[in-house]
Amino acid sequence: MTEFSWPVRVYYEDTDAGGVVYNANYLKFLERARTEMLRELGFEQDRLMDEAEILFAVRKITIEYLKPAYFNELLKVNVKIAEIRKASILLHQSILNQDDILICEAEVRIACMNKQSMKSIPIPGYILSELKA
Amino acid sequence: MTEFSWPVRVYYEDTDAGGVVYNANYLKFLERARTEMLRELGFEQDRLMDEAEILFAVRKITIEYLKPAYFNELLKVNVKIAEIRKASILLHQSILNQDDILICEAEVRIACMNKQSMKSIPIPGYILSELKA
Amino acid sequence: MTEFSWPVRVYYEDTDAGGVVYNANYLKFLERARTEMLRELGFEQDRLMDEAEILFAVRKITIEYLKPAYFNELLKVNVKIAEIRKASILLHQSILNQDDILICEAEVRIACMNKQSMKSIPIPGYILSELKA
Amino acid sequence: MTEFSWPVRVYYEDTDAGGVVYNANYLKFLERARTEMLRELGFEQDRLMDEAEILFAVRKITIEYLKPAYFNELLKVNVKIAEIRKASILLHQSILNQDDILICEAEVRIACMNKQSMKSIPIPGYILSELKA
Repeated sequence: MTEFSWPVRVYYEDTDAGGVVYNANYLKFLERARTEMLRELGFEQDRLMDEAEILFAVRKITIEYLKPAYFNELLKVNVKIAEIRKASILLHQSILNQDDILICEAEVRIACMNKQSMKSIPIPGYILSELKA
Repeated sequence: MTEFSWPVRVYYEDTDAGGVVYNANYLKFLERARTEMLRELGFEQDRLMDEAEILFAVRKITIEYLKPAYFNELLKVNVKIAEIRKASILLHQSILNQDDILICEAEVRIACMNKQSMKSIPIPGYILSELKA
Repeated sequence: MTEFSWPVRVYYEDTDAGGVVYNANYLKFLERARTEMLRELGFEQDRLMDEAEILFAVRKITIEYLKPAYFNELLKVNVKIAEIRKASILLHQSILNQDDILICEAEVRIACMNKQSMKSIPIPGYILSELKA
Repeated sequence: MTEFSWPVRVYYEDTDAGGVVYNANYLKFLERARTEMLRELGFEQDRLMDEAEILFAVRKITIEYLKPAYFNELLKVNVKIAEIRKASILLHQSILNQDDILICEAEVRIACMNKQSMKSIPIPGYILSELKA
């Protein structure tokens, strides 16, 4: 998988009194695209949690807000795997508006964790092989 | 307890592109006041959940939006117990802005539930007696 | 239009520590479906706001939470026009989970408003005729 | 002002099905503390917007999630001015839980902008002098 894209429509719920998408809500958009990328690869996170006690938690995010996004726009959220480690993944993410202008860039580190202990664990082999494919 | 009040400041996160508090976010304000009323009565909901496996879930809300609330306003959220049944409570709630103008009214039915089964259960006696006091 | 349906995926952002969709977030799902119904009828709300200074504001909601919705479920959100008045519309809305079980029912009154004055105004004829079609 | 602190209570609305505060919601907590710091310095952002057409927008955030925060905890959100430039400010922010354990660290760059043009502008002198005091 070179790059995965997911469309996100901006609703009233996403905007603020400045008339643009509220800063924290970009993180929701970024996560929706990561979730859909995992689904595309064959992994449903509810099953990973219930059957394998695995969850992916955000460890670090660096996000740059380049241009505002507005109510009713149809955005495109991209995900690209930048680095795969034993227990974590680094993703490059970007958001483009409907005029294909880059409005946001982010680097997101995701760690594989045991749901009970909330401790970092190695990413299982069957997930690693799909991520690397 | 006749009526309980809790102050809520409106931040950017609460507003939308219409320049006012977003409709769903009033429900968050209403719940904060209910949570703080329970705390005032001596009940911490994390302990109720962990020690007694009890949680209070919203069953029904009727909410009327009378006037808009704006960014940076300091609102007053009120809670009044209207009716106590065996397994549920009916609350009258209202929100006033900083000019003491009524901007929102709500009726909220809360049910006592077992956390594991997610089934309705009777409200324990020690909670009932505090609610009735 | 007899009934309009819109799919909504439940992401982490929508859930709470009870493991289910948080009560206020159902209101967001209901609004997404209303927005998409208006789009289907040919009305983009950003253009209505910019070109005609019209916005539709929620006046009253009655919502019943019948069953919980869970992380990762694909819900179906329905909208049905129940009554059309001069300056407001009454909608019946419902949410079904992926097993087609009814989990939520709502009645929503929406008022047509002037964006500047935030006062109620009659629904323009060209919108009325589409709503009635 | 060396460091400013603001208390934030974790409500249901802030948590997710993982049982902890949802990643995007930390950004809301960080902003509440920044808003209250500005208020402490004498600046109400609604007045800055209406009277001087100034708003502060987030340009870049780097956030590290060190430990989870749980429902019902009373967190402490800190803000420290790290650097003051002509048109932007760099802030160091941190969140501690009620056991005084550091759970989150962030660097936030805020730019001063004209509300109409949404273009970067120099921070007015009367704000700069308070920030530097």
